Amino acid sequence: MSNDNAIFVGEKPFMNYVTGVVMQFTTKGASEVIVKARGKFISRAVDVIEVCRKRFLEGKVDIKSINLDSEEFENKDGKLVRVSTIEIILKNN
Amino acid sequence: MSNDNAIFVGEKPFMNYVTGVVMQFTTKGASEVIVKARGKFISRAVDVIEVCRKRFLEGKVDIKSINLDSEEFENKDGKLVRVSTIEIILKNN
Repeated sequence: MSNDNAIFVGEKPFMNYVTGVVMQFTTKGASEVIVKARGKFISRAVDVIEVCRKRFLEGKVDIKSINLDSEEFENKDGKLVRVSTIEIILKNN
Repeated sequence: MSNDNAIFVGEKPFMNYVTGVVMQFTTKGASEVIVKARGKFISRAVDVIEVCRKRFLEGKVDIKSINLDSEEFENKDGKLVRVSTIEIILKNN
C-alpha cells in the first residue's frame, strides 16, 4: 500500500480529515486508507474514523486493523520524551 | 471477565491509571485487563497502555484487542452529540 493512502491527523479543521478519507475511497478508488496520529491527536483520529465509518461511509468501510506504538526522542532540553502513536487501517467492504 | 478488571481512564493523575493496570496483573493476578476511555481521554488511555507495555510490564503483557466505537446522546441544549470510545484489552504473556 502506498503512502498516498495515508492521512496524518493533526490540528487542521476536523472535516478536512474526514473529507480526505472519504475522497480516498470514493474519488480515488482506494481499497484501504491508513489514518495515523500521535500524542493528543490520537483521540481526534478515532473521531475521524468513527464519523467516516458511521456517517459518511456507513456500511461501506470497516476497520481492518489498529496498531498502537510509541516513539522516544530527546526534546530541546535533552530530556527523553515518549509519544504514543496510532495507525488505523480502514478497508472497503 | 468481570468488570473488576476494567480501568476507566479520565482526568486523575496519569500514574494512577498505570499503577491500576500494573496492580491488576501483579497483586490481583488478573490474566486480562480492559482499559477504557471516551473522547479526549482516548489519547491518554493509549499512553497508559504504552507505558505499561513498554516500561512497567515490559515483556509480560501484550495487546489482545482494540475496539473503537461511538455513542450518541443529547446534550443539555437538546443537541445530538457523538463521542468516540476505545476499549483496549491487555493480556498476560
